[in-house]
Amino acid sequence: MTTDRTTRTCLAVILAAGESTRMKSSQSKVLHPVGNRPMIAHVVAALAGAGIADVALVLGRDAEKVEAAARLPGVTASVHVQTERLGTAHAVLAAREAIAKGYDDVLVVFGDTPLITAGPLAAAREGLARGADVVVIGFTAADPTGYGRLIVENGDLVAIREHKDASEAERAITWCNGGLMAIDGRKALDLIGRIGNANAKGEYYLTDIVEVARAAGGRAVAVRAPEAELTGCNTRAELAVIERLWQERRRHALMLDGVSMVAPETVFLSWDTEIGRDVTIEPNVVFGPGVTVEGGAVIHSFSHIEGAHVSAGAAVGPYARLRPGANLGEGAKVGNFCEVKKAEIGAGAKVNHLTYIGDAEIGARTNIGAGTITCNYDGINKHVTRIGADAFIGSNSSLVAPVSIGDGAYVASGSVITADVPADAVAFGRARQENKEGRAVAVRERNQALKAARKKAAE
Amino acid sequence: MTTDRTTRTCLAVILAAGESTRMKSSQSKVLHPVGNRPMIAHVVAALAGAGIADVALVLGRDAEKVEAAARLPGVTASVHVQTERLGTAHAVLAAREAIAKGYDDVLVVFGDTPLITAGPLAAAREGLARGADVVVIGFTAADPTGYGRLIVENGDLVAIREHKDASEAERAITWCNGGLMAIDGRKALDLIGRIGNANAKGEYYLTDIVEVARAAGGRAVAVRAPEAELTGCNTRAELAVIERLWQERRRHALMLDGVSMVAPETVFLSWDTEIGRDVTIEPNVVFGPGVTVEGGAVIHSFSHIEGAHVSAGAAVGPYARLRPGANLGEGAKVGNFCEVKKAEIGAGAKVNHLTYIGDAEIGARTNIGAGTITCNYDGINKHVTRIGADAFIGSNSSLVAPVSIGDGAYVASGSVITADVPADAVAFGRARQENKEGRAVAVRERNQALKAARKKAAE
Amino acid sequence: MTTDRTTRTCLAVILAAGESTRMKSSQSKVLHPVGNRPMIAHVVAALAGAGIADVALVLGRDAEKVEAAARLPGVTASVHVQTERLGTAHAVLAAREAIAKGYDDVLVVFGDTPLITAGPLAAAREGLARGADVVVIGFTAADPTGYGRLIVENGDLVAIREHKDASEAERAITWCNGGLMAIDGRKALDLIGRIGNANAKGEYYLTDIVEVARAAGGRAVAVRAPEAELTGCNTRAELAVIERLWQERRRHALMLDGVSMVAPETVFLSWDTEIGRDVTIEPNVVFGPGVTVEGGAVIHSFSHIEGAHVSAGAAVGPYARLRPGANLGEGAKVGNFCEVKKAEIGAGAKVNHLTYIGDAEIGARTNIGAGTITCNYDGINKHVTRIGADAFIGSNSSLVAPVSIGDGAYVASGSVITADVPADAVAFGRARQENKEGRAVAVRERNQALKAARKKAAE
Repeated sequence: MTTDRTTRTCLAVILAAGESTRMKSSQSKVLHPVGNRPMIAHVVAALAGAGIADVALVLGRDAEKVEAAARLPGVTASVHVQTERLGTAHAVLAAREAIAKGYDDVLVVFGDTPLITAGPLAAAREGLARGADVVVIGFTAADPTGYGRLIVENGDLVAIREHKDASEAERAITWCNGGLMAIDGRKALDLIGRIGNANAKGEYYLTDIVEVARAAGGRAVAVRAPEAELTGCNTRAELAVIERLWQERRRHALMLDGVSMVAPETVFLSWDTEIGRDVTIEPNVVFGPGVTVEGGAVIHSFSHIEGAHVSAGAAVGPYARLRPGANLGEGAKVGNFCEVKKAEIGAGAKVNHLTYIGDAEIGARTNIGAGTITCNYDGINKHVTRIGADAFIGSNSSLVAPVSIGDGAYVASGSVITADVPADAVAFGRARQENKEGRAVAVRERNQALKAARKKAAE
Repeated sequence: MTTDRTTRTCLAVILAAGESTRMKSSQSKVLHPVGNRPMIAHVVAALAGAGIADVALVLGRDAEKVEAAARLPGVTASVHVQTERLGTAHAVLAAREAIAKGYDDVLVVFGDTPLITAGPLAAAREGLARGADVVVIGFTAADPTGYGRLIVENGDLVAIREHKDASEAERAITWCNGGLMAIDGRKALDLIGRIGNANAKGEYYLTDIVEVARAAGGRAVAVRAPEAELTGCNTRAELAVIERLWQERRRHALMLDGVSMVAPETVFLSWDTEIGRDVTIEPNVVFGPGVTVEGGAVIHSFSHIEGAHVSAGAAVGPYARLRPGANLGEGAKVGNFCEVKKAEIGAGAKVNHLTYIGDAEIGARTNIGAGTITCNYDGINKHVTRIGADAFIGSNSSLVAPVSIGDGAYVASGSVITADVPADAVAFGRARQENKEGRAVAVRERNQALKAARKKAAE
Repeated sequence: MTTDRTTRTCLAVILAAGESTRMKSSQSKVLHPVGNRPMIAHVVAALAGAGIADVALVLGRDAEKVEAAARLPGVTASVHVQTERLGTAHAVLAAREAIAKGYDDVLVVFGDTPLITAGPLAAAREGLARGADVVVIGFTAADPTGYGRLIVENGDLVAIREHKDASEAERAITWCNGGLMAIDGRKALDLIGRIGNANAKGEYYLTDIVEVARAAGGRAVAVRAPEAELTGCNTRAELAVIERLWQERRRHALMLDGVSMVAPETVFLSWDTEIGRDVTIEPNVVFGPGVTVEGGAVIHSFSHIEGAHVSAGAAVGPYARLRPGANLGEGAKVGNFCEVKKAEIGAGAKVNHLTYIGDAEIGARTNIGAGTITCNYDGINKHVTRIGADAFIGSNSSLVAPVSIGDGAYVASGSVITADVPADAVAFGRARQENKEGRAVAVRERNQALKAARKKAAE
């Protein structure tokens, strides 16, 4: 049986009010990035993937920034600031106003489990649609020590037993509580309201809802998520583990889609990286946000790419840095120690060595010599350099923007170009060479004398 | 007992006709590289290492390219295009003509198991020499699920039991079929011809040869290979695993030979990389094909080296790119953000910063200043730069080739050199400096006004 | 019970006389670095951390270099050259003279276990303080095969059983001998002297001291160290494992202290690297010795930093190389393909692209254009470049040191600056541009003709 999710309304309550003390951070932990996207946004994206458009954020520190980070197209979020810390059930009730609006499903998730995917969330909602009052998302733990065990009888979840309260037999159970759960939206406030705090810490634990719901004649069940999806984040070491798991997932998906990676563990992707089929990525490549690479392109080692588009058959690197606004045409090449920012590189154009191209347009098949610099900044403003097609810019040239160089023009090596160069013109902007015969001997003698004098002075 | 392999003739049949659909690739999977060498070439090299000079390639797509990639000195290959896909036994028979020439041994291997080494191949041939009709290469599986189990009785291999057909007891067996096998060359066509296709898929499975041979009164045995050597490749994710295993093997061998690697997992080798004793390789170094490094050299981090030779005591990087034809003399240094292509760098010469050296000869002990560019390309042709010994090239110089600079010459910083410089001469090619006192105030005011105007225009 | 360590005297004997043949190295293995510090120095630092100031070095090859590498503030070391190799007990007796001075505790450690920390060493001394004559440092082995087993009865260590001599039951023991031990300093020479060599190799094994001490009516116990801390080094492959474990330990500690690392396995630290809270380190960063980074700085990918200081809020990289003496002020930026050596970069100053800054002072908020080179070397001497605050150095400029550029000065792009520039002056040092209309057509024709001629000549 599959239920049409679109017929049921759902509110997701995201708990993200923790102080995150162990992160030792100047910002809330849910703002820390995974795949260059704030952790909280990954959670919201997974919710959106499970068809959930209404979100209630339970926040503490950095509430404004977290709200901004959680904003995703198609998702409406309300903010509820939790001022006291009295346990997870108490935290959910901070969103009482949102829950009270009346939803078929209420999903409770954490802001610091960014690896969760739509699958288990949808499965939990499906459980509600099939008549359960509470659906807990569980996982089979490789090592269950410390986790709450899911006690299941005849398909019903009868209790979540904390590790410290578990019997020897119960401790052998590896089916554990993942913390996330779905609750019948019409009963949620009532059920949560019945949760007491008669425990050592005097806190209200959401996990008690299982026994509360059953006591009220309701039913609880558990659905499964992979353990990795439930990885939480309390320290930066755990954040690094989450990042690694996230990267592994994305790399694997790309490889199965036809992207070759010589050493996938050295390729770092962003959440929105798009790479076409038959692209080869050599070891040690970093993709910042906003990158698309078309099929058949090659990204050589040590490249760093963000906010850029690489067309089919283009070659990048090694040691190329593409910054936001870099747009490489088909078959274009940007090579070693080259930086390209806010610039169109025409089809088949070559920027191969030690070059800075910023705020520029370069025509098709044009060759930019080694060491060329577009001088785009006057200290206050940025200016544009326009170079036509089939042009040749000699090595070590300085192109002082704003300046235009026509199709087929030829700039002599070492020139400083301050005025426009017409199409098919040759431009020189360099001094004539002069040789002083034998003079190097004197230069060396003078330099040696200086060295001796310095040495003497230092004595 | 050791048999002299050279007294027995052998044909290896390499099965490489798969469509490799799951690779999602525009080329046959056996062309995909491992250690910068096509997968198929690794297989042929292992065969050659086991003394096998005759190879029959059973190919499908990209037959011409695969044949070219499989070409190795001392190995003769015939090509047999498989047009239908009716199972592995059927595939071997595509090479019927080659097998029929008459060999003592016929070895059947796969084009997509590039980690196989000569050892198990030689052991399989040894099995034939000792009288077996069929010798299967097996492995002890860490997790045997899915693999065919090798059923051995009294030292004889009596059957290969597919996982789905295995009893509970047989499933506990971890001794598994690796797929590769050796067959008595005089009986091979007869035995394979007896294999039927009375199975669910209606295919002819080579594994059935074990029972066929025994039914004919023959004997089958199994020899062992490490599991890693039998790793096959169906997706690019599996290709990445093979690459990792291959790299680990090569790095380990180099370290045991006296090469220091601070972080071996970040050093990427090619199939033909040669590195001498007491070389230190820092983290993040990529070796393309054709590199030799002599003893005592240091390769600093973030270096990318291909087709280059590094002599004893030389230092490379960090961030050095040596391209094909770079030849560093003893004690030479090529430093950060430097690219060297098709160039001799003399003993003790230094190319330390932000430099492009292409199509050049640089003499011993010469110092190339930061930012120097050999302007070797006129848009159509490449030209040569020759620099003598003990010369000094000032920073940010452009050397417009063809040009020669003599021994002991001195080029002033920022010069554009278009004509030869005699030995011991000083060459200048730069404009005289002029200071405009106080003018910067006006420049800033003008630039600020432009900024204000732009802002206003944007409103 | 905690004993005041300061009331007991202690000598540590470091065994470091091995030939280290399997390292295939031109130097003693204890000189090989871990975290950019010789292995032996790590051992001495751990000893110092356990309150031990007196060290006896038992050395073989490279004794002078090893002694120098072992020198740490507050630690006094004597050198004892071991000429014969007759077992570990024999090796310890090479330091007889030092032991005979009379210490409460004698600790025997190895020069090639650099991962040992103060904790187990202090615990071993604590065992002596509580009355044991011998305290062996043991570990629980993941796989005990090959290790000596610690046979414990009623809390007493009764024997160290070599693997080959162990019974089946004893081989099941995972509690193993780590090799390091503490011995009652007043009894050490006597006990070691009683050790015999009645064994297959005719060597004197220190492990026999357990039974010797008990035979003399004394007591032996064992204390625990994590297995990783006892990792020894016999090959460069093992050295790489030690380096990895060491790096993992340091990275983990930094992350728990509030440093973010996107991919910690790609960040390489040195023994003395100091990094403040809320610093973000992107993938692929190498820290050489002598680096301090203040809170809130960002180290972008592919940066290589040694001997440098990065102030709060500064940004480094991607692809920045900071060399010894680089000192970045608050909020300063050093960007891609930039090298900074022995230079002050003022607060808020920017050195963003393709630049070499050496032997220089750069004032606050000054902007250094792309491709700028400080020409600090005349082939023999280094010279200083001084740039004031709020200055603007146009792109591709060459600053020929010694030279000074005043506050607010403006250097035009492509200039060669050989003389001082006053504050607020504009300096030019470049040739005027000249365009030759239509000339590029002729240039191309000439180059094409050359190409054709070359081709013909090659035929």
